[in-house]
Amino acid sequence: MRKPKIVILGAGYGGLLTTVRLQKLIGVNEADIVLVNKNDYHYETTWLHEASAGTLHHDKVRYDVSNVIDRSKVDFVQDTVVEINKDEKKVILEKGEVNYDYLVIALGGEPETFGIKGLKEYAFGITNVNSSRQLREHIEYQFATYNMEAEKNDNRLSIVVGGAGFTGIEFLGELTNRIPELCHEYDVDFQKVKITCVEAAPTVLPGFDPELVNYAVSTLERKGVEFLIGTAIKEATPGAILVGKGDEEPYEIKAETVVWAAGVRGNAIIEKSGFEAMRGRVKVNPDLRAPGFDNVFIIGDSSLVINEEINRPYPPTAQIAMQQGELVARNIGALIRNKTDLETFSFDNKGTVCSLGEDDAIGVVFGKKLTGAKASFMKKVVDNRALYMIGGAGLVLKKGKFNVF
Amino acid sequence: MRKPKIVILGAGYGGLLTTVRLQKLIGVNEADIVLVNKNDYHYETTWLHEASAGTLHHDKVRYDVSNVIDRSKVDFVQDTVVEINKDEKKVILEKGEVNYDYLVIALGGEPETFGIKGLKEYAFGITNVNSSRQLREHIEYQFATYNMEAEKNDNRLSIVVGGAGFTGIEFLGELTNRIPELCHEYDVDFQKVKITCVEAAPTVLPGFDPELVNYAVSTLERKGVEFLIGTAIKEATPGAILVGKGDEEPYEIKAETVVWAAGVRGNAIIEKSGFEAMRGRVKVNPDLRAPGFDNVFIIGDSSLVINEEINRPYPPTAQIAMQQGELVARNIGALIRNKTDLETFSFDNKGTVCSLGEDDAIGVVFGKKLTGAKASFMKKVVDNRALYMIGGAGLVLKKGKFNVF
Repeated sequence: MRKPKIVILGAGYGGLLTTVRLQKLIGVNEADIVLVNKNDYHYETTWLHEASAGTLHHDKVRYDVSNVIDRSKVDFVQDTVVEINKDEKKVILEKGEVNYDYLVIALGGEPETFGIKGLKEYAFGITNVNSSRQLREHIEYQFATYNMEAEKNDNRLSIVVGGAGFTGIEFLGELTNRIPELCHEYDVDFQKVKITCVEAAPTVLPGFDPELVNYAVSTLERKGVEFLIGTAIKEATPGAILVGKGDEEPYEIKAETVVWAAGVRGNAIIEKSGFEAMRGRVKVNPDLRAPGFDNVFIIGDSSLVINEEINRPYPPTAQIAMQQGELVARNIGALIRNKTDLETFSFDNKGTVCSLGEDDAIGVVFGKKLTGAKASFMKKVVDNRALYMIGGAGLVLKKGKFNVF
Repeated sequence: MRKPKIVILGAGYGGLLTTVRLQKLIGVNEADIVLVNKNDYHYETTWLHEASAGTLHHDKVRYDVSNVIDRSKVDFVQDTVVEINKDEKKVILEKGEVNYDYLVIALGGEPETFGIKGLKEYAFGITNVNSSRQLREHIEYQFATYNMEAEKNDNRLSIVVGGAGFTGIEFLGELTNRIPELCHEYDVDFQKVKITCVEAAPTVLPGFDPELVNYAVSTLERKGVEFLIGTAIKEATPGAILVGKGDEEPYEIKAETVVWAAGVRGNAIIEKSGFEAMRGRVKVNPDLRAPGFDNVFIIGDSSLVINEEINRPYPPTAQIAMQQGELVARNIGALIRNKTDLETFSFDNKGTVCSLGEDDAIGVVFGKKLTGAKASFMKKVVDNRALYMIGGAGLVLKKGKFNVF
């Protein structure tokens, strides 16, 4: 009898955890496991705000996939997914194709620009290692160039962050720590630097506890951030954005650096491959399979799970992706062993911590509100926990965050 | 009786050595000493190739002027010279003016682009701290951006250095050490990087011993540099240069980074202030005074001293500027004490070492030819010597180069 073939697409939090759980669970004789990923490394999406601001080197936010997979059980294919052919059960890759009996789609999300003109062309993203280090270098180049020019262009020192959600706020926390260093480094007057955060929603960090939100806003304002809340970006142009409240006449904010940190959608491959989706996210069955496809699981940013309590989708996070990965590994194990009753997914929210820089944060952990050093400590615990779940204590020692005091 | 006032313009090698020698030589009651400089720091012009390539941080190539001057004897004015009014014996500054009885012009040189079209607009320079860190950040940004683009622009990895003189060759030595690091850092294929050195003269390092030149060329070629000798840059355009040999049809070399390291001329202030000059350099009298002005000394890159042996001007170097500074301090001391016979300058060439990177160099020291580790060691001795002459052992300990093995 032919061994079934399990193909996992993506080595993010969800895909990688599925892989390491499966390689433990499944014997070599039971199934073949193939992991496909664009890069030969995994990166910590939740740490990218640090690499983008330049407070943490980008090599610290990634590690080789080969560090955590068991090559005797898992074949690793470094390639980019082009399309999934569900009828023929195969995945078309840029440099080849791969057949599957069971497929796990864990391709991650993509920035959502909501059709706002110019954002794709002129805004930077905190999306992956490539985009983060480009953003960091762009900011640094602006500071390096400022003193070179006879006519000073203050817009080089103007940075706009679009979005006051998790990514926007965490990036602002790092950026406001980095700016004084940059000013010192490039002989730039701190007073000339302008940081603006533009958020269309009526509040910073929608869904977060208001007391914690106040803490975050006043902390960041003290460090120099101006918040424009309830204000939408209408258009990005070279060197500026147009913003406006409601129907009021849009006005211009000049800035050589515009960062778009406001929207995530599912992967474009989802729609391209004919799955029914809302902004690239598939409302998966309780066992995390795609409706109508008994051998296809979708997890992470391209999956959509409803929070029954508020009847709204859970936001895509590393935490939920990893919990989904653990369940999918067990469910695929069951299918391979010809069991028919699969487990259903329910999200166990252990809490959320939003960093405000090196030594400050806000969060709710096990139901308890935290700010400052305690929250910051918990943030590092959370970061190390993801490493532990995927790569064990060895990976924590290698890539963990220990600057906790 | 009014104390005479000595004004020194520029805190480069020549100006700073003049100042520190004068503050030892002259009593507080004998004269007032004023040092004028654009920045509050001195930078090591001869180390800028390292800061430009990114192999040495730019803060290591500078130190505060206040570290080496005696504030009880010297007034420091941070301002930029606009013009010298020789008739009224005053210097016009951007934010004020200063009168003098004795003036030392040590304003340093400027890049000379020989009217080549586009160089000023599109080429980077290794001229000062601002330009060096901008060049470094520009190169890094090109590498950071390379992987971000769906359509790869290989010209981002193409670097052209115009000029195979001292600055060009030393920069290439550092750059070829830095490139493998950048490739690793930004996941770029080393084979894609292209470094071209274009030199109009018929040889690399004109005036250097041919055996040492061969060593330098073959070392740099082995590290990936392509030399186009006897080839002139005809024009720089955005993203490219046009080059040609003699009368042949110019052809294009695409490169997002073009560095102009080929020419130095005297300071524009010289001509603006009505001194008779050749490319901004004044052929000074043997006592280093400007012809016709008994109270004005000119030293460093804006002065011109003939090497009688070959009847050609000495090239402007830190070594000659410092020797001039020492002499000028003594001559001003003499004038203040009403002596009329001033010392005449003769250059004591202690040797020349051209670095080829961290641990390699070529040079002639005390008449002896050196290559490799020995030459590299001597280069660091030379670098530390300049620190010692200006700031003594303390400055060497603080800013010296001790990575000698």
